[in-house]
Amino acid sequence: MKHYNVAILGATGLVGQEFIRILVQRSFPMASIHLLASDRSAGRKITVSNREVEVEEATPDSFQGIDIALFSAGAEISRHFSPIAVREGAVVIDNSAAFRMDKTVPLVVPEVNPGDIQWHQGIIANPNCSTIQVVVALYPLHKVNPIKRIVVDTYQAVSGTGAAAVEELRTQAKQVLEGQSAIPHVYPHQIAFNVLPEIDVFLDNGYSKEEWKMVEETRKIMHADDIAISATCVRVPVFVAHSEAVHMEFSQQMPVDEA
Amino acid sequence: MKHYNVAILGATGLVGQEFIRILVQRSFPMASIHLLASDRSAGRKITVSNREVEVEEATPDSFQGIDIALFSAGAEISRHFSPIAVREGAVVIDNSAAFRMDKTVPLVVPEVNPGDIQWHQGIIANPNCSTIQVVVALYPLHKVNPIKRIVVDTYQAVSGTGAAAVEELRTQAKQVLEGQSAIPHVYPHQIAFNVLPEIDVFLDNGYSKEEWKMVEETRKIMHADDIAISATCVRVPVFVAHSEAVHMEFSQQMPVDEA
Repeated sequence: MKHYNVAILGATGLVGQEFIRILVQRSFPMASIHLLASDRSAGRKITVSNREVEVEEATPDSFQGIDIALFSAGAEISRHFSPIAVREGAVVIDNSAAFRMDKTVPLVVPEVNPGDIQWHQGIIANPNCSTIQVVVALYPLHKVNPIKRIVVDTYQAVSGTGAAAVEELRTQAKQVLEGQSAIPHVYPHQIAFNVLPEIDVFLDNGYSKEEWKMVEETRKIMHADDIAISATCVRVPVFVAHSEAVHMEFSQQMPVDEA
Repeated sequence: MKHYNVAILGATGLVGQEFIRILVQRSFPMASIHLLASDRSAGRKITVSNREVEVEEATPDSFQGIDIALFSAGAEISRHFSPIAVREGAVVIDNSAAFRMDKTVPLVVPEVNPGDIQWHQGIIANPNCSTIQVVVALYPLHKVNPIKRIVVDTYQAVSGTGAAAVEELRTQAKQVLEGQSAIPHVYPHQIAFNVLPEIDVFLDNGYSKEEWKMVEETRKIMHADDIAISATCVRVPVFVAHSEAVHMEFSQQMPVDEA
């Protein structure tokens, strides 16, 4: 079996840590693993299957000999390093929003459109976490009875924002319980004991960027440009795990029990 | 101006306290106020516009001479005392679910269907808190362009459950932050740092009772039996104030800006 040289960009973040955990858990055939991050995190040691691996600063030279590069360090970093990694022969699997709606980049959820991997040109994007949940649940239904309309409202945990947000919820909750005022840093408003229907910036069409991602990404992944989608994305004071309420209208009327 | 003898049943609860606050705030013309509760709360003193009023145990004799009785002590208590209060000549305004769907009882939101008060036979019901928010926002739109379909998902604060739930959120949040496990009492599961898509019991049709209330009550208040409604009701770890995401389909297509 071929063994791969793997690089993880954003290795010290919440998603980077999860990349490592899953590679180890599934015994992914790795010849080597390279943990890349910003210069702030360089030098940190991370244990990967009982072996200490030092985090290196990501530079243009970091991708020599890499077969697979997993990126989760934000869209800016992805835009900067992806062409470099691809030029070095790596396949980049990008968790950021940088290339998701790029027509030359497949946007893939393995349970839904694994075949789209085949036409990649070096970069494969994966969608927003909220989109993944929706399409995994809906695609099997859509194949049986094409979905005309989706209404989805989310209950998104702070882990989706990253480690600093998890800490902010913890700190603010403590402050509120002690009768102090909670000062927001990561979020625009207090998140402890509150819900924020404002994830990412608002667009001219009235939706937040997070909401519009769900619309566009769902259509691209499900190959269904004409599905009507309305989303309301809400951050809730929960540490991990997103929940979503999804309502659908199908092309063919389903039999309904009389209540 | 006529002054009324007012009774509040459930005077020590969260809603009862709010009844008192608003009667005072609006200088409601009261000849007397009678604070009624269970025997557990009898004897407690509550300040009503600078005067201490003693809470009395509710008994069949409590409603003699009462003009207006405000009830918020649960459906069982409402079912028991409403006929007694009505027989004594009081108008009962009931916050419980006991009579909301009773064909002989008007279900009223003053901003929407104030006229329905006119056909009361002694009892006037007010709807679930989640329903009120929806109909106040939607009714003016419905009058201009009849609504065919409503999809609503809620983010409901623990205050809707009552004072014990507010305390449970506070206690559990403290426990979780201190690394202890949080034991649920009021809710079936942990509410701190969690969301619970399970408000009241589940019905045979798959909806929770809270969700089905929104369907039935909205139709009754808006005099629109044929509106299609789908609701998902979720309890969130927020102390006060409900939020709701509402999506609508109107009878007439609205002009849409091209994105």
